[in-house]
Amino acid sequence: MTGPAAPTPSALAALHPLALDAVRFDPDGLLGGWQRRNADATLPHVIEQLTTYGNLDNLRRVTGDADAEFTGMWFADTDVYKTLEALAWSGTFPEFLADISALLEKAQEPDGYLDSYYQVERRDQQWTDLGFSHEMYIAGHLIQAAVAAARGAGSPQLVTVARRFADLLVRRFGADGDDVIDGHPEVETALVELYRLTGHGAYLDLARRFLDLRGHGRLGDGRFGPRYWQDHEPLLTADEATGHAVRQVYLLAGAVDVAVETQDTALLAAAERLWDSALASKTYLTGGQGSRHKDEGFGDPYELPPDRAYAETCAAIGSFQLAWRLLLATGRSSYADEMERLLYNGIAASTALDGRAFFYSNPLQLRTGHDGSHEDTPSQRLTWYSCACCPPNLARLMASLHAYAATSTSAGVQIHLYGAGTVTAESFVLDVRTSYPWEETITISVAAAPDQPRTLSLRVPAWCRDARLTVNGSLIRAGAQSGYLPITRTWKAGDVVTLTLAMPPRLIAAHPRVDAVRGSVALTRGPIVYCLEHADVPPSLSGVPFEDLSIDAGSPIALGTGIAPVTLLPTLRVRTAESDLLYRPLSPDGPDRPGATVPAIPYFLWANREAGPMRVWIPLAATGSSTAG
Amino acid sequence: MTGPAAPTPSALAALHPLALDAVRFDPDGLLGGWQRRNADATLPHVIEQLTTYGNLDNLRRVTGDADAEFTGMWFADTDVYKTLEALAWSGTFPEFLADISALLEKAQEPDGYLDSYYQVERRDQQWTDLGFSHEMYIAGHLIQAAVAAARGAGSPQLVTVARRFADLLVRRFGADGDDVIDGHPEVETALVELYRLTGHGAYLDLARRFLDLRGHGRLGDGRFGPRYWQDHEPLLTADEATGHAVRQVYLLAGAVDVAVETQDTALLAAAERLWDSALASKTYLTGGQGSRHKDEGFGDPYELPPDRAYAETCAAIGSFQLAWRLLLATGRSSYADEMERLLYNGIAASTALDGRAFFYSNPLQLRTGHDGSHEDTPSQRLTWYSCACCPPNLARLMASLHAYAATSTSAGVQIHLYGAGTVTAESFVLDVRTSYPWEETITISVAAAPDQPRTLSLRVPAWCRDARLTVNGSLIRAGAQSGYLPITRTWKAGDVVTLTLAMPPRLIAAHPRVDAVRGSVALTRGPIVYCLEHADVPPSLSGVPFEDLSIDAGSPIALGTGIAPVTLLPTLRVRTAESDLLYRPLSPDGPDRPGATVPAIPYFLWANREAGPMRVWIPLAATGSSTAG
Repeated sequence: MTGPAAPTPSALAALHPLALDAVRFDPDGLLGGWQRRNADATLPHVIEQLTTYGNLDNLRRVTGDADAEFTGMWFADTDVYKTLEALAWSGTFPEFLADISALLEKAQEPDGYLDSYYQVERRDQQWTDLGFSHEMYIAGHLIQAAVAAARGAGSPQLVTVARRFADLLVRRFGADGDDVIDGHPEVETALVELYRLTGHGAYLDLARRFLDLRGHGRLGDGRFGPRYWQDHEPLLTADEATGHAVRQVYLLAGAVDVAVETQDTALLAAAERLWDSALASKTYLTGGQGSRHKDEGFGDPYELPPDRAYAETCAAIGSFQLAWRLLLATGRSSYADEMERLLYNGIAASTALDGRAFFYSNPLQLRTGHDGSHEDTPSQRLTWYSCACCPPNLARLMASLHAYAATSTSAGVQIHLYGAGTVTAESFVLDVRTSYPWEETITISVAAAPDQPRTLSLRVPAWCRDARLTVNGSLIRAGAQSGYLPITRTWKAGDVVTLTLAMPPRLIAAHPRVDAVRGSVALTRGPIVYCLEHADVPPSLSGVPFEDLSIDAGSPIALGTGIAPVTLLPTLRVRTAESDLLYRPLSPDGPDRPGATVPAIPYFLWANREAGPMRVWIPLAATGSSTAG
Repeated sequence: MTGPAAPTPSALAALHPLALDAVRFDPDGLLGGWQRRNADATLPHVIEQLTTYGNLDNLRRVTGDADAEFTGMWFADTDVYKTLEALAWSGTFPEFLADISALLEKAQEPDGYLDSYYQVERRDQQWTDLGFSHEMYIAGHLIQAAVAAARGAGSPQLVTVARRFADLLVRRFGADGDDVIDGHPEVETALVELYRLTGHGAYLDLARRFLDLRGHGRLGDGRFGPRYWQDHEPLLTADEATGHAVRQVYLLAGAVDVAVETQDTALLAAAERLWDSALASKTYLTGGQGSRHKDEGFGDPYELPPDRAYAETCAAIGSFQLAWRLLLATGRSSYADEMERLLYNGIAASTALDGRAFFYSNPLQLRTGHDGSHEDTPSQRLTWYSCACCPPNLARLMASLHAYAATSTSAGVQIHLYGAGTVTAESFVLDVRTSYPWEETITISVAAAPDQPRTLSLRVPAWCRDARLTVNGSLIRAGAQSGYLPITRTWKAGDVVTLTLAMPPRLIAAHPRVDAVRGSVALTRGPIVYCLEHADVPPSLSGVPFEDLSIDAGSPIALGTGIAPVTLLPTLRVRTAESDLLYRPLSPDGPDRPGATVPAIPYFLWANREAGPMRVWIPLAATGSSTAG
């Protein structure tokens, strides 16, 4: 059994997932540590919150085992399903998984319907408001949990429940049924996964049908117009990622799943085109997507404000899952690069160091004087949200993270994400030692090998301009070459491969059309985006407003250590204020005055200390020439 | 009778409003032309929309004269009231005013209650949801319409209706009533105005009581937390304009009204302090306020994105009305400066050239590829909105605009807003000739004068660095001096004063903490903010993305003419693209290549041609030194 997104043998696929247990991360490594934290802290916390916030009682009132009012969002059932999915991937809390599966079976209606919001007082409203009801979105998360339970921890009961609901969808909305779609895509990818699990073609057909029906304005204008739910234009002709970011990336994930299973290269190309459009002008440096709070939407091209970045955690997770599907379909390293960027930045930043608090939106700047009093713009991670989609989504991703690290082809094994641990592809067993991304070198020892020649392919990220590869101490390749470095040989136990990815600190500029960060740079090293946080400003600068710090781009940047094994040490300067006026005639500014060296920390670690300002994009120090303010 | 906000004789007041008919703008001038357009186009259009969109039928169903469902926002009655107020100030459509006044009297409940949303199906919900119901906000707009009808066109019937509702408020929420406040401030200023009209102290007391009750968390968290409706902190101790921008400025207007009528200097100082905080870090160059779409809110200090500027039209109108109250209270020219900035930019931009389409939000940038398909972010003005608060608000302001132009003291007359027309202050009659703000000179001829010496005070805006004043051809003062230039003499008919306010084109930079416009400048001349609009880009640059245009700050800016009597002619350059990558290592850019001279037009005239990109803030051309992208 494999992990998430397992194409059938007949699917279009350049790469194939390994078995779910093929990769095991060392719990003392960064990735393995995240998985351990997820199992030890996040999952117990999430389960507790599902009780505290009434999600479980919502289901129990359907069965008559609770009599409280329905509480939370009308799609609160999905928080339960994503949690079950996480438990299934991680093999933890099997009793909870079994208990809730039994509860779900009891709560399910005879026809297969299952939605605790609509099952008690609102029976007559079932299927009447598909734009907003999320009923199929809920079905999709139930199905995904069931697929995970079948592939992971094993729970036939959950699969039975999910199939009953899926069969209802087929009866009601299949080719002979109503021409409708759900306002929130999600069920498409779930149905394809259920098809993969069961071999039942009707699920694939229904997913295809939902894709075909979308893009013709069936959902109407809703609150934000048809682009919000990607119903303005069919996928095959759409040329721009738009609308609600989570909906867009979930929809594209479903499109890739359908495309590969139906060998529809035009649909696959459409998904790639839309994804490319997002990366070209609508993605944050962290991989985050969605520039607007109002509609949780992508916004216009190049509209990427760091302070109001919405960059919803669920969108980052959806993008990661989409990139994985595109990677499997095409084998292109750029998709794995994007998974890496998302993982270490947009996704990792969402969880607190203790694993029990989360960001929903992920801004790249927090100002002095920020009003963090509301959950829409908190100054620090919160333990839960009134719409709690993100925490259990993080839990299910982290629980399955190892499944995304490597793939296989008939010729060999490809490693995409580097974490200390082991990779087992049938008789080919690799021991990976590294402190990546803190250190530059990944050492891979062959623990066991087949007799035949095998190709080991190692990803060289596009950010790397100097990769050095050795096999048993002999330099094989060096220089700037992104993509996969293949090494084909008849391997023997004891063979050692080292890949060294040079990670100099780097100043990154944005495309000039990104007005919001003009005249600013970001600091990166390897895949990690860094940020300045108030807590690291030394006493010598304590009277300086955080926003008046600028960076001396000409000074070298040393490496330090602190909250992370590697911090960066840029030289900052302090803006010389010409005037306190908000607007003033343009005049030459004096050069910024000397500041200090201030540690920049990985963005994903911000807001783990006292709340205060932070910024990824740092203004370039004024040099004294005639420029604006 | 005076216009809006008429302090009683015992109020704290540095300046006093003139009679409502004291200033008459020439309909061929800019300000008079706006008033004529308002009467000829906007008001008929608004009246028509009130019928089309059901606002009037909402009231008629209360009286049994219509049986349609309630339609529109639950506070749709206020669109009617603001329209009535506009009709009263302008003296137009007296039959409509009379008819609707009669309808209102018929619809009003015996106890004085009047709210068509709550009067039919929702009788039992009256006063149960004050955070969101807007019932007192609605009462406030009814009262303001009645005050206008008493001071302007005269309709005692409307005053009777309004007093009945106000009396209900006093009985129910006065000192012996419930300790509650409305989620949307507005009734405070209305009650003070009704007190001014009637002399009935209970209205003033109730307004004072609502101010005192606010700021203690009575409204709870709502959707956006207590700051949203300014209930987090009492006015007297609050130090920052925050939350929903319209609520904030309406609340401050009420605070000033109460402060001056109760001689409460601490409350007046609080209002000034909060206003100053907004101007220091939370106001757009156009005077617009409110940086966020999500909660229509102010946002954090220096968070002023031009593309996502909400800058709601109603907030600009509320700011204008607040500035007027502060001007009367203090006599400080900075308040009149702000009125002028708002009038020619943030407010004027809201209305289409034809007077029949409006912006609700007023962005300072529209990008290539902007999705203007939804009314939240339209690419051009719309004829109406699902929440139509702004169009009738514009109508009532424009209908009363002349009342804000000049004031008096015992010593003489002060002119704040310069428009061609006449100013009559008792026996002192002034004829104002000017094409301001297109031309620099205002010529004021004395048509009649009293025998005693009088002081004529003329405002010199803070943006002016060179003001020249002559009386009968003799230069009286010249140089940089903002504030009021007083001329005291015994005037004679035929005396001529000229004020020349130098208006060189100017490049404006923002405070360096306004990250969103770093490295960019705006063009202004006099009080007018200019913008670049796609329609003016010459054929020689037709292949250049609008966003790649930059400005050569070193080239002189000539004056031109076109859509406005004065356009500006900056020299633009074209960015040399280093790469299409969204993010790239910082590297020196080549200098921008030569572009062309492109007319910049007044911001208030944008979006009157084919829809397309626009920007107020223009990137400074790269000079070829090492800077970002």
